[in-house]
Amino acid sequence: MGGQLNTPPVNAGDYQALAQERLDANAWAYFAGGAGDEITLRDNRAAWEALRLLPRIGTSLAGADTSVELLGRRWPTPLLLAPVAYLRMAHPDGERAAALAAAAQGCGLVLSSQASTRLEDVAALVRDEAGRGPLWFQLYRQRDAGLTRELITRAHTAGFEALVLTVDAPVSGARDRERRAGFRLPPGVSAVNLPPPSAGGGTLLQQAAEHVLDWAAIEALAAASPLPLLLKGVLHPDDARRALSCGVAGLVVSNHGGRTLDTTVSTAWALPRIADAVGGALPLLVDGGIRRGTDVVKALALGATAVLLGRPQVWALATAGAPGVAHLLRLLRDELEIALALCGCPGSARIGRGLIAGG
Amino acid sequence: MGGQLNTPPVNAGDYQALAQERLDANAWAYFAGGAGDEITLRDNRAAWEALRLLPRIGTSLAGADTSVELLGRRWPTPLLLAPVAYLRMAHPDGERAAALAAAAQGCGLVLSSQASTRLEDVAALVRDEAGRGPLWFQLYRQRDAGLTRELITRAHTAGFEALVLTVDAPVSGARDRERRAGFRLPPGVSAVNLPPPSAGGGTLLQQAAEHVLDWAAIEALAAASPLPLLLKGVLHPDDARRALSCGVAGLVVSNHGGRTLDTTVSTAWALPRIADAVGGALPLLVDGGIRRGTDVVKALALGATAVLLGRPQVWALATAGAPGVAHLLRLLRDELEIALALCGCPGSARIGRGLIAGG
Amino acid sequence: MGGQLNTPPVNAGDYQALAQERLDANAWAYFAGGAGDEITLRDNRAAWEALRLLPRIGTSLAGADTSVELLGRRWPTPLLLAPVAYLRMAHPDGERAAALAAAAQGCGLVLSSQASTRLEDVAALVRDEAGRGPLWFQLYRQRDAGLTRELITRAHTAGFEALVLTVDAPVSGARDRERRAGFRLPPGVSAVNLPPPSAGGGTLLQQAAEHVLDWAAIEALAAASPLPLLLKGVLHPDDARRALSCGVAGLVVSNHGGRTLDTTVSTAWALPRIADAVGGALPLLVDGGIRRGTDVVKALALGATAVLLGRPQVWALATAGAPGVAHLLRLLRDELEIALALCGCPGSARIGRGLIAGG
Amino acid sequence: MGGQLNTPPVNAGDYQALAQERLDANAWAYFAGGAGDEITLRDNRAAWEALRLLPRIGTSLAGADTSVELLGRRWPTPLLLAPVAYLRMAHPDGERAAALAAAAQGCGLVLSSQASTRLEDVAALVRDEAGRGPLWFQLYRQRDAGLTRELITRAHTAGFEALVLTVDAPVSGARDRERRAGFRLPPGVSAVNLPPPSAGGGTLLQQAAEHVLDWAAIEALAAASPLPLLLKGVLHPDDARRALSCGVAGLVVSNHGGRTLDTTVSTAWALPRIADAVGGALPLLVDGGIRRGTDVVKALALGATAVLLGRPQVWALATAGAPGVAHLLRLLRDELEIALALCGCPGSARIGRGLIAGG
Repeated sequence: MGGQLNTPPVNAGDYQALAQERLDANAWAYFAGGAGDEITLRDNRAAWEALRLLPRIGTSLAGADTSVELLGRRWPTPLLLAPVAYLRMAHPDGERAAALAAAAQGCGLVLSSQASTRLEDVAALVRDEAGRGPLWFQLYRQRDAGLTRELITRAHTAGFEALVLTVDAPVSGARDRERRAGFRLPPGVSAVNLPPPSAGGGTLLQQAAEHVLDWAAIEALAAASPLPLLLKGVLHPDDARRALSCGVAGLVVSNHGGRTLDTTVSTAWALPRIADAVGGALPLLVDGGIRRGTDVVKALALGATAVLLGRPQVWALATAGAPGVAHLLRLLRDELEIALALCGCPGSARIGRGLIAGG
Repeated sequence: MGGQLNTPPVNAGDYQALAQERLDANAWAYFAGGAGDEITLRDNRAAWEALRLLPRIGTSLAGADTSVELLGRRWPTPLLLAPVAYLRMAHPDGERAAALAAAAQGCGLVLSSQASTRLEDVAALVRDEAGRGPLWFQLYRQRDAGLTRELITRAHTAGFEALVLTVDAPVSGARDRERRAGFRLPPGVSAVNLPPPSAGGGTLLQQAAEHVLDWAAIEALAAASPLPLLLKGVLHPDDARRALSCGVAGLVVSNHGGRTLDTTVSTAWALPRIADAVGGALPLLVDGGIRRGTDVVKALALGATAVLLGRPQVWALATAGAPGVAHLLRLLRDELEIALALCGCPGSARIGRGLIAGG
Repeated sequence: MGGQLNTPPVNAGDYQALAQERLDANAWAYFAGGAGDEITLRDNRAAWEALRLLPRIGTSLAGADTSVELLGRRWPTPLLLAPVAYLRMAHPDGERAAALAAAAQGCGLVLSSQASTRLEDVAALVRDEAGRGPLWFQLYRQRDAGLTRELITRAHTAGFEALVLTVDAPVSGARDRERRAGFRLPPGVSAVNLPPPSAGGGTLLQQAAEHVLDWAAIEALAAASPLPLLLKGVLHPDDARRALSCGVAGLVVSNHGGRTLDTTVSTAWALPRIADAVGGALPLLVDGGIRRGTDVVKALALGATAVLLGRPQVWALATAGAPGVAHLLRLLRDELEIALALCGCPGSARIGRGLIAGG
Repeated sequence: MGGQLNTPPVNAGDYQALAQERLDANAWAYFAGGAGDEITLRDNRAAWEALRLLPRIGTSLAGADTSVELLGRRWPTPLLLAPVAYLRMAHPDGERAAALAAAAQGCGLVLSSQASTRLEDVAALVRDEAGRGPLWFQLYRQRDAGLTRELITRAHTAGFEALVLTVDAPVSGARDRERRAGFRLPPGVSAVNLPPPSAGGGTLLQQAAEHVLDWAAIEALAAASPLPLLLKGVLHPDDARRALSCGVAGLVVSNHGGRTLDTTVSTAWALPRIADAVGGALPLLVDGGIRRGTDVVKALALGATAVLLGRPQVWALATAGAPGVAHLLRLLRDELEIALALCGCPGSARIGRGLIAGG
């Protein structure tokens, strides 16, 4: 995995350092950067680190495993690759590599609608892999409603099993790092599943008004979807509560990896409050700053069924392609198993909030 | 905007770095410095950064805009340039440049009584600009009551629409940075609207006693003023409550940008407490450490109608004159629009405290 | 104590610096490292530092001393050397040196089952020393129950007075620092009291399931043991409460020096909660981050009868062998006496929680 | 004040930097160092900095001044020089310079019993100065009761007006910085008012037992003293309450400048709790970390009548002798006047706890 390395990477942070050496400044600014002063970007990480575990002793671990059940399907490891745009900017194998690695490690994949590989090609590659995790497709509201319907139909036909509707980004965030770097997509990388972007008119607020999904629109999309629809980007408990009656199949607690609105609450802050709000009536997922097996344990303890990994997949992909991503997922699964054992938890599905000190 | 730059500034912080390169040590010490150990100077900034936003999804943004209404007048953007002395020390165009930029961007201007340009000249330049924001004049109590009356009359005649009476500085703060730099006004820059300063006698406390305005004096000034009078420098909720019955038209929650009393409370700390104290009975403005569109959203959420920008205007002015200030204001307006959209807020006037986590 | 030193070490931290110069990178990674990002490793130390003492004046110190009584035996100083594996990797004299130093200073010794010296040899060296502290043996559950019984018999026969059963490590932690260093035991150093390790099968969770001790197994071990049995690795108050009825003689509040599960609670956090849970019904000991006499005072104030020292013994041993460890223990005893005097406490056994501000 | 300076010192911190350049490592270790890891040393400073002022507007400052009344005597400025040993190690003029400076600036002096100048010489120099502050003498319990009585008689005869009995140091703290520096008194500097120290026997705890003053001994000393007796080194509210009935004339809230027991509570933490405990029945003074006029205002707001300055007097003395100390005191008085004016407080004696946010 890279002959020039002194030692192989032993955790996600090592992959971050390796990726920064390999990616050019343009790609690094895009993948690593966040909105504004990147306070939320740092907060996401810091919030998981700040939680303290209160492990138990004397518990039998007979029959312990990490598998979870979600949308009627059981799979080995409560990890999914989060939707990340333009993975071919990180490595020529791009989304294909990510999908193969996830399937090989029993993890799920959420393909970005801004993927740089045709969604049909990705799905065909892993759809029939035994032991793989879920295969989902992420989408934004397009200004053209017909285009949204077409994307959904294509994803359904290709074999995706659920849709993840991103609701927290009616406009792009103020990504100062990208702007300073003068970021541009490199030749040959584009959002191949979408038509070329057209410049909108009016103020930024007016442009946002065209892209925002109100609750009526969300309900209509859920009702019309041939696939279960999850909402991604929920932070407010009242919104989670509202979502209970709009026909969605789950919520992803997310602040878009700190890439949209700087100084939002961290996802580790929001998750338990949202879990309280929905009271188990909807499955919850979470992303943002998860880098360690102990972070996964904490997310499960606070009410998540599984977690999504954004930047770490990019780091491993940029470092070593599919084997890199597979290795990263394996490291995280090992860390998760160790953490579960040391917490005295016999499995992913049996973790209570009492595992968090003061939780 | 400066050929020697690698990239154009993308936020207020970039302008700060650029200004520090351009200004000499004397001017930088004056504009950048604060009182004592500059704890309040840093606190002001840190307090806005520390607030966490709890954005909403599913809200329509139809008809969204950033306009506000204040003292019977609607204007496009809830930003004003705060009163800053001696702007010609930052750029030859000084107060003229600031006024033009504010008017061009639909923002307000509060001219300092220590301006280095005649107040009549500034007013004449922008008074008739369509789409400009408010045009206000700041004043201190002068030892000579006749002089205070004369200044008010001049401001009124020139076309200023309100007076902002600074009440938090009966003596100068202990500005150690200025003293270490041996600060002196450069040739050709002075407070042209005021008579030359005369040295007072007695102890510092006795000198302060001559400049302090007690409530009776404030009431008398408000009653005699031909223009609405706002008080600037209020931090204590009891003082805000007391101000309700003294005939003023609004309050500016301010600690003088950390330039007077070090280790006061930050303005972000004081604002919601003062909002609770006045219960909507007086419009509130706030300054101190506001550098981001998200800071503006937070100030509005905590009860302000608009915010004042102090040091950032100096940075942009020193960097690029009027175009610099206009560009800075445009960056902030864009950040504000993005933040409103991402918070699910359809406009400046419709933000509640629930937007702040724990607020 | 080392001719190349400018000044002799005056506290435990000095020994840390000296040891880092003397040990090779392999040994340093093993002894100094912790699990994951070493957050708990740092937390342990920070938590003792963060506690604030509220000393008393006007108290007589007549008859003051530092002695404590534990398991029916009174000894001079409430300090024990914690079980640390492979001490011969730190110094050729290894466990022998540690044992001699502890006995000479009236401190206790807990020999690791992974000691690099035969347990009989260590016991024979100090068993009959007058004025020594307790002589205990630490053990893990072995996959082979017969082996566990055999170790207990050997320890009993050799003269150990109690067993310390480690219950917080059914698998090894994710020791990233060791993995990065490619840690290997040097030639001639091994766990001489145990059979060579055999690779287990199955997932990490399945391997953990074989090593974990459930409460029934703990009760059985305690019932069968010819020696008092203490549990080491208790952090949860409910587990401490559960331990009251399983026949053990004491608890060691420990997170394995931050070497197993990263981001657990610190031991200074857990100790008072466990003291409340057991209400004096079992003696408590504590380790993790104790480096100062004031830390010892705080541990006693929060409910411990004595404390264990892990890494500091390694630092002193690596620096100067047995004289180093003896000197370190003497420094700590002096610091403890000074702290007791300055707190107005006439002795180790008479410290209440009121000594801790807010405690 | 030192030709090699670029700019004259403008605050106490500047004097610290200047003194460090002038003093040798031996003297610097003694004066600057604290106990252990110097956590309390830093805490003392940080605790004053962390308090936030909530200033008032609209208050008349007519008749404002900084004078205070204490033990039946009114004096200009609520500042005293704290007892510091061996001032001749900082400057040849030593205690004489400190005394002259204090008298010239209307501040008080507490002469250390470990002064390096005869107490009679110091008193004779300033006793008859008009406008000086209080002249007090500090003492420790001596092992020889006759010696204690003799010292008191000498102080009384020389013209000292009160005694300050230090009760927080029955043994020396663990001053690691001094020990690392191998501190020794330079030739010609000694505690000239005391007999040469004799080595005590027994353990540190036994030595402490001989020097500690229990409440009975304190009461006896107070009853026998021809001068008012203040206790220095009180941190616990219960001890302050106990002191109400032992005949003392005041309390100095102090942790010995962080030089005895590391990780005690800061004096800013203890002061308001002690003020609550004594309810105005005894005058309170405070020292530890006071470096700014705002710190003095905070101390007065939290219940102190005056404050003591320890290390700053050494810094100014080492830098420039008596003129340095006088200049430092003048800087602090100016800062105090500015702070009072900006807080809207007409004088030292009329500051309430409401001035502290959350206080």
